[in-house]
Amino acid sequence: MAFGVQAAAASTPSSEQLRKTASSLFKPIPEAQVVIKDRNLSVDQIELGKWLFFEPRLSKSHIISCNTCHSVGTGGADNIPTSIGHGWQAGPRNSPTVLNAVFNIAQFWDGRAADLKEQAKGPVQASVEMNATPKHVEETLRSIPEYVEFFAKAFPGEKDPVTFDNMAKAIEAFESTLVTPNSRFDQWLAGKETLSNHELNGLNLFINKGCVACHSGINVGGQGYFPFGVIKRPGAEVLPAGDKGRFAVTNTASDEYVFRAGPLRNIALTAPYFHSGEVWDLEQAVAIMGSSQLGHELNTEEVKAITAFLHTLTGEQPRVEYPILPRSTPATPRPAQ
Amino acid sequence: MAFGVQAAAASTPSSEQLRKTASSLFKPIPEAQVVIKDRNLSVDQIELGKWLFFEPRLSKSHIISCNTCHSVGTGGADNIPTSIGHGWQAGPRNSPTVLNAVFNIAQFWDGRAADLKEQAKGPVQASVEMNATPKHVEETLRSIPEYVEFFAKAFPGEKDPVTFDNMAKAIEAFESTLVTPNSRFDQWLAGKETLSNHELNGLNLFINKGCVACHSGINVGGQGYFPFGVIKRPGAEVLPAGDKGRFAVTNTASDEYVFRAGPLRNIALTAPYFHSGEVWDLEQAVAIMGSSQLGHELNTEEVKAITAFLHTLTGEQPRVEYPILPRSTPATPRPAQ
Repeated sequence: MAFGVQAAAASTPSSEQLRKTASSLFKPIPEAQVVIKDRNLSVDQIELGKWLFFEPRLSKSHIISCNTCHSVGTGGADNIPTSIGHGWQAGPRNSPTVLNAVFNIAQFWDGRAADLKEQAKGPVQASVEMNATPKHVEETLRSIPEYVEFFAKAFPGEKDPVTFDNMAKAIEAFESTLVTPNSRFDQWLAGKETLSNHELNGLNLFINKGCVACHSGINVGGQGYFPFGVIKRPGAEVLPAGDKGRFAVTNTASDEYVFRAGPLRNIALTAPYFHSGEVWDLEQAVAIMGSSQLGHELNTEEVKAITAFLHTLTGEQPRVEYPILPRSTPATPRPAQ
Repeated sequence: MAFGVQAAAASTPSSEQLRKTASSLFKPIPEAQVVIKDRNLSVDQIELGKWLFFEPRLSKSHIISCNTCHSVGTGGADNIPTSIGHGWQAGPRNSPTVLNAVFNIAQFWDGRAADLKEQAKGPVQASVEMNATPKHVEETLRSIPEYVEFFAKAFPGEKDPVTFDNMAKAIEAFESTLVTPNSRFDQWLAGKETLSNHELNGLNLFINKGCVACHSGINVGGQGYFPFGVIKRPGAEVLPAGDKGRFAVTNTASDEYVFRAGPLRNIALTAPYFHSGEVWDLEQAVAIMGSSQLGHELNTEEVKAITAFLHTLTGEQPRVEYPILPRSTPATPRPAQ
């Protein structure tokens, strides 16, 4: 894929032409039921995963759950610059949304987890997040009869089903159902909805200015790794020098300041932006991307149009019934602050 | 009401006699629909209140909501000794359950709030909890069009509906629906369920030993104020000397170490116990109450029977769909840690 910069905006093609082009670049988000069928997800694992996703006792303090930083009520993220974890420590990066995360090429801003199962193990153990250990998790879950029973049901035939690994597997199953179908964009792709000329102009610019080089596919991003600052590295307030991104994963010089391209589904819901979470305004984020990644100072009209297009990527948010968690027993490890 | 101690346990009466006595002392928890009708609650205020109950932007940090310390998934409380709030500060007292709180005589352990509306304003402003101000709350809500519209709908005819006061009113409406009907005890009261002899023996002891003097009515407690240590003050590990309870509200010497009797509905779900949250084991809590309030060292059998009865007070937990909260705008105050 090239990062070619087109100096002049292409003239807006017809809606039909644009739909054809867009259909070759993007893919609609399916309904949860389709994901469940396609991936052959276990209904029991999904429901167990929902318990675990909301389970604060997976954290050392008993007050932090997956949903704390990836809230299903606020776009699957926490919408603060960087997450606050155990002991009120600020994490190093902005919390990525859990919504549609199942479609990303890999997890975390640097792609250091191959999938959601591997990802789920990270925050539970991170000292600045939930600050627990696999031992704490397993002792906790084994101390609660309803969990023992549920793990046995969700992982039938396993001799020792209550494990840290199965915890992660169940959370992955639940998170895979957190998808947001039927955005206005997807409905337009399917010919069921119209977009305004302003929005279509934005889509056209998004494609022709080159945004699509990194932000394509089902999640309009999240599919590959690119340097933040392809053309011009932004200032330290947006790109802190201390966080070299994927370099920490691959230890390869060319991966300095390389990050997974942000998935742009529901992007209007999840300010602030970038891995640093330092930019609150979506229009400003678009303008920064124009200059840093495309070497192009987008004018105000272009920024507004692209932003209008990005707003059409907001899909139907998942409706989740809060799980009623089973009570602790005397054997359950106590919280520690 | 007397604190009379009956030295000898009364012989267990028949289930029918006991049901008659119990019916005069306790009252079943109604279904939410009945509460809504009886209290003439507005459906719009309830739904708006649900948004607000889960709204982390009411806090200065944007990460603490009412549900953080009063989670509907864990018995309406946070189940740690004392709540952790802004800056990871530990609050002075154990978080009381929000479930059935509408039936309490007053709110907080010292009853300093007359009702749930008044209560809701406390944690939002407390520096060790959400650490916000009415101004922060009103600026936040007014910056989000969906809230402006919803307040107008929920408080029709008001010229300026988006107020801190109406926020509290809506939260009160939602919280009033968080009730737990159909506990095994309530079904037994209604003649629809049997209790075991062990449980009935516990109920009989609960009545005849004098527990019922403070723990009666619809919430099996929560109806009046009593000194912690009627007969014998417990040690500082359970009753810290620095927290004089209702004395801080009334400034009256006789209110030193006086607290609202804990409501015992769903008590099996909400360890640790007492305002200090220092006792994890329900049997131990029962034993402490026996010696401190009744001057009676309950034997192991008695403690176990009373505890078995307390387990029958766990009702159907409310099923709450997680609200999808509207996104912030550029005018929304930013989080501060």
